[in-house]
Amino acid sequence: MRPGQPILQYVDRPGLLDLGWGHPHPSLLPTDAWAAATTGALSTYGWQALTYGYEPGPGPLREWIAGHLNATDGGGEPDEIFVTAGASHALTLVCGALARPDDVVLVDSPTYHLAFGILRDQGVELVAAPVDGGGLDPRALDEQIVALRRQGRRVPLLYIVPTFGNPTGHSLPDDRRRELVAVARREKVTIVEDDTYRDMVYEGGAPPSLWQLSDGQSVVRIGSFAKTVAPGIRLGWIQAAPDLVGRLARLGYVHSGGGVNHTTALAMAAFGASGAYRDHLTIIRREYATRRDTLVAALRRLPIRLDVPSPAGGWFVWLPLPAGRSAAEVLATAEEHGVSFMPGSTFHVTGADDDHIRLSFSLLAPVELDEAARRLGVALAETL
Amino acid sequence: MRPGQPILQYVDRPGLLDLGWGHPHPSLLPTDAWAAATTGALSTYGWQALTYGYEPGPGPLREWIAGHLNATDGGGEPDEIFVTAGASHALTLVCGALARPDDVVLVDSPTYHLAFGILRDQGVELVAAPVDGGGLDPRALDEQIVALRRQGRRVPLLYIVPTFGNPTGHSLPDDRRRELVAVARREKVTIVEDDTYRDMVYEGGAPPSLWQLSDGQSVVRIGSFAKTVAPGIRLGWIQAAPDLVGRLARLGYVHSGGGVNHTTALAMAAFGASGAYRDHLTIIRREYATRRDTLVAALRRLPIRLDVPSPAGGWFVWLPLPAGRSAAEVLATAEEHGVSFMPGSTFHVTGADDDHIRLSFSLLAPVELDEAARRLGVALAETL
Repeated sequence: MRPGQPILQYVDRPGLLDLGWGHPHPSLLPTDAWAAATTGALSTYGWQALTYGYEPGPGPLREWIAGHLNATDGGGEPDEIFVTAGASHALTLVCGALARPDDVVLVDSPTYHLAFGILRDQGVELVAAPVDGGGLDPRALDEQIVALRRQGRRVPLLYIVPTFGNPTGHSLPDDRRRELVAVARREKVTIVEDDTYRDMVYEGGAPPSLWQLSDGQSVVRIGSFAKTVAPGIRLGWIQAAPDLVGRLARLGYVHSGGGVNHTTALAMAAFGASGAYRDHLTIIRREYATRRDTLVAALRRLPIRLDVPSPAGGWFVWLPLPAGRSAAEVLATAEEHGVSFMPGSTFHVTGADDDHIRLSFSLLAPVELDEAARRLGVALAETL
Repeated sequence: MRPGQPILQYVDRPGLLDLGWGHPHPSLLPTDAWAAATTGALSTYGWQALTYGYEPGPGPLREWIAGHLNATDGGGEPDEIFVTAGASHALTLVCGALARPDDVVLVDSPTYHLAFGILRDQGVELVAAPVDGGGLDPRALDEQIVALRRQGRRVPLLYIVPTFGNPTGHSLPDDRRRELVAVARREKVTIVEDDTYRDMVYEGGAPPSLWQLSDGQSVVRIGSFAKTVAPGIRLGWIQAAPDLVGRLARLGYVHSGGGVNHTTALAMAAFGASGAYRDHLTIIRREYATRRDTLVAALRRLPIRLDVPSPAGGWFVWLPLPAGRSAAEVLATAEEHGVSFMPGSTFHVTGADDDHIRLSFSLLAPVELDEAARRLGVALAETL
């Protein structure tokens, strides 16, 4: 790397094995295959890959995404797809279209912490939806919505990562999915289903999406190629009723720009059509499963007794701390021993779950994960 | 092109030579050179080109842009640069950061019409700034700002394309630039200087930017690679005081995404560093100058007397209609004769200038421009 301005978001902290970053391992980014996809798109589509694109995204990618969703989940039409510059951008667009400043947006707990800033930038107030040991509680949610509306609040949206969620790796059970969709329909709340991790499944299949269970009513689904291909390409999508897709396509800057990431979208269409997506996914699923297994096994081998979950998908182990430890306290000691992580309270608007920590197994190599678990064990023993 | 969903924004109207589109000619898009730049970036930066990027944009591109601005205008530091997904996205971000709903945003007249939708999406009210035959009138502007504030309005921003502007191709004269910057500083209004066309200069140099004349005070400059490289890559930049760059970098979705177009930004850095930008610009300046000359000469040869300007830069001829014609009336007749354009009133928030039309010479080949002018002449004669 050249000196001067940074290239990357990642900040290296020498000597530290950092389980805090939800970033991909460098070796699992498809450097050559992405170069081939870009060259392929410029060869297949020629100048059409470089000029102003169709506002909701170029047809070949909308068709590929719809086909992929049909094959892996069920339910997907090209005119339901709006191509975005990543899932974060998708969340910005959906919140901007469906919520107004001072509205209440409900959020699952714990959930993707960076969604909080994205949503709050739209001027909305975040309120934690009710949860119990099985995740979001649809019946209590219904009561909460009714109560908020009695107070005169507008409650247009609920944000949730129901499948291999960040930070827990858990998926919402099927019966709760059905109840949640029914509540949303009854109360006319739109569920924003962040489905970023659907393809990052290591055994069995992913559960049916809320989108599928609702027949696309009361649900807007967002997805991303950040985990399955590469974060830097800034490419994701929204699946929504065609009238919302049309509204987004008519936004001033989408119309002016001719879509939001046209050239990259056609490169992704080529990456999909060539089979590179399927091949890359096969590789990274195996590799991330190995990393998960390494971290889980190393944690379970520690002399200290831990209840270590092994997530069926995603990038994270959500670890309950032994009784009496707070994450903040363990973090300070852990960093002294050369290991770091994200405290559980990061993933709550309320600051709850200080007795959990999130360990990401995506960025480090297996040998590093093994050593990180060992160091964490020392820190946990010391904070007894 | 495959059947199914569209790829492009452009809509073909068979039989029509359409001077309405501000799109590049297909042969002037750098298909091979962009493939080489992408491959080059993935070779130079490897996995770093594909992971989460530094929020304000990767160092190599911020440094290249700053150096390019220094060389072509004067004044540019890497920490003043925020990389965006195009100039339209830049305008959205700047308006979102500096204006609030119901604020007044002043706009030059005539000016880039798609900016109106971008700005209005932020909830602001657009008001035409005062102009005379020389363009924006700084003294009258000062009075307008004072009057608006007396009415209790907030007036945080003025939007202008002062250099080879869309739709006129004119540049604001140097003395007015200096006065405008002085007014902005005195009245604490931020000028949003859309500098999209600076590098599309055909003879002489571009005038000094408002940014340069103001030493970066009271001015935020936005730029784009849409005209000089390709619209589809969705890449542009904001030049602003480093504290505003920092605010934008901390936006929720910018932080979550690791910059807004990281991989493409590094491809552009490679395109710049290799000399491909300079070489491509040399070619397209020559080609667009030829197209301008062809259209201007063909219009001047028409039997009907027209006052045809020849713009020193940009993509547009801003044509005053002969006395008594309205653009709407001429447009209907012109389309019957197989030629189209944009009526002047499109570029005003007030609907003024129905006696002008905008003719874009970017999309058509010289032989088509020649024929388009001939058809326009027939239509003008018929609407006498």
